Amino acid sequence: MQNVTTISEVRQILHEVRRSGKSIGCVPTMGALHEGHLSLIEVAVEQSDFVVVTIFVNPTQFAPHEDLSKYPRPLERDLKLCTEAGASLVFHPSAEEMYAKDSQISVTVGSLADCWEGASRPDHFDGVATVVTKLFNVVQPDLAFFGAKDYQQQSIIRAMCRDLDIPVKIVTCPTIREESGLALSSRNVYLSDQEREIAVHISQALLRARERYADAEWSLEQLRKTLRQELNETGGLELDYATIVDPTTLEEVLEKQNTMVALIAARVGTTRLIDNMELSLKS
Amino acid sequence: MQNVTTISEVRQILHEVRRSGKSIGCVPTMGALHEGHLSLIEVAVEQSDFVVVTIFVNPTQFAPHEDLSKYPRPLERDLKLCTEAGASLVFHPSAEEMYAKDSQISVTVGSLADCWEGASRPDHFDGVATVVTKLFNVVQPDLAFFGAKDYQQQSIIRAMCRDLDIPVKIVTCPTIREESGLALSSRNVYLSDQEREIAVHISQALLRARERYADAEWSLEQLRKTLRQELNETGGLELDYATIVDPTTLEEVLEKQNTMVALIAARVGTTRLIDNMELSLKS
Repeated sequence: MQNVTTISEVRQILHEVRRSGKSIGCVPTMGALHEGHLSLIEVAVEQSDFVVVTIFVNPTQFAPHEDLSKYPRPLERDLKLCTEAGASLVFHPSAEEMYAKDSQISVTVGSLADCWEGASRPDHFDGVATVVTKLFNVVQPDLAFFGAKDYQQQSIIRAMCRDLDIPVKIVTCPTIREESGLALSSRNVYLSDQEREIAVHISQALLRARERYADAEWSLEQLRKTLRQELNETGGLELDYATIVDPTTLEEVLEKQNTMVALIAARVGTTRLIDNMELSLKS
Repeated sequence: MQNVTTISEVRQILHEVRRSGKSIGCVPTMGALHEGHLSLIEVAVEQSDFVVVTIFVNPTQFAPHEDLSKYPRPLERDLKLCTEAGASLVFHPSAEEMYAKDSQISVTVGSLADCWEGASRPDHFDGVATVVTKLFNVVQPDLAFFGAKDYQQQSIIRAMCRDLDIPVKIVTCPTIREESGLALSSRNVYLSDQEREIAVHISQALLRARERYADAEWSLEQLRKTLRQELNETGGLELDYATIVDPTTLEEVLEKQNTMVALIAARVGTTRLIDNMELSLKS
């Protein structure tokens, strides 16, 4: 596995890869890899000939009060995991390599960034869209792999490729869960054993919503209400939002449609957790 | 010459061109081609194997009060001129082909878009940056050719390629002038014979500034002052700005440096004209 820190090295290596006719898959990450990331790399290895993992803790997607400097950066461990998962190249640039000092041109997301996670993190998704555009322009992959866990993020990346005509196919991979149902997240390490038991209620509520959704007896309004009620009644859990939205527009939907997504964000102790599940009508 | 209106056709054709090892040059235009555009195509033909001219009157760079619908669209004539100039392909999409109805993700220019031309057209350069990003993502050229006449535009496109890591080399081609010195512009057709004579003062003032710049006797402050004074004294011409700036930051410069640019915008009758000239110290 190659291990590269500069844009020019990446370009040089990938130029040869592309010339040889190989397809290129890209897995953008902020490092601190867990099983969820590794599953993305494994899918990428299945679907493309040459897999580039990017590891970059992107400053422009952190708000001033969010602690960029404390974000974990276990590089040696990450590199080892990438090798084991079958990545061909890891690109882990410095912030200076990625952003010119007087950098000023960026990608701006519209209303898709105002709701849900964007509501509490105003510039977050503009930062994500900008860095992913840059990474795509450096790597020029055929395919790029994102986790369904960050549902709004993958919706925005898809809209970005459509609206800016970026020629990359976005593949959204299923959320990886613990046996309990808890969605894997870098933030789970902050949970105590007791908080972990409380957090499990989030995935359980989603699973129940999924079962009920297919039942014609349940209206969407009832479903939302019940989802919120169950989580509001869970001790030790503070609900931020629980809703059912259109997978593309992320707008709350009023009438059942073939595919919808239930989104939840909640705080357990001091840790904010998000999770989601697709709801499909029985065909 | 191929003549194409859909993104998928362009991609299909250029995929083959790229596979054959040919370099691709792109000349983005809004059509209504004049000698200035044709000189860009000719330089593109010299420097690349396959030249794509795009003709698209981009709605997002027009303000609501600017008359998008009245912008000239002499397509048959433009196609003929592109053929004669040696273009390989013309891409002239509809607005519907370029923008999804619910399109919401765009490119935003920072302070480079606030000054000079941007001051009177607040969203103009965001619209330009967005459409050029899109066209670059469709055509994926090796080289792209812009006129020095729209100096701020080419500075912004260069900054955009740097800040978004767009792998396209920007080539800025010299302004084409009438024998009188008047810079070619689509807007010159609006000038009466008398206005045309007045307009010539703009390029004459720039030429004088260039001569004086090389003269150690002239300070930058004197130079700016004289430039403004001469144009303010020209009857029938209403000066908007006349200044000397850094070619990259477009900020007014206080001390002479190797390369600088004199920028002028002025109204002659109802027609707003811009022109510029690089000033270089004698080496």
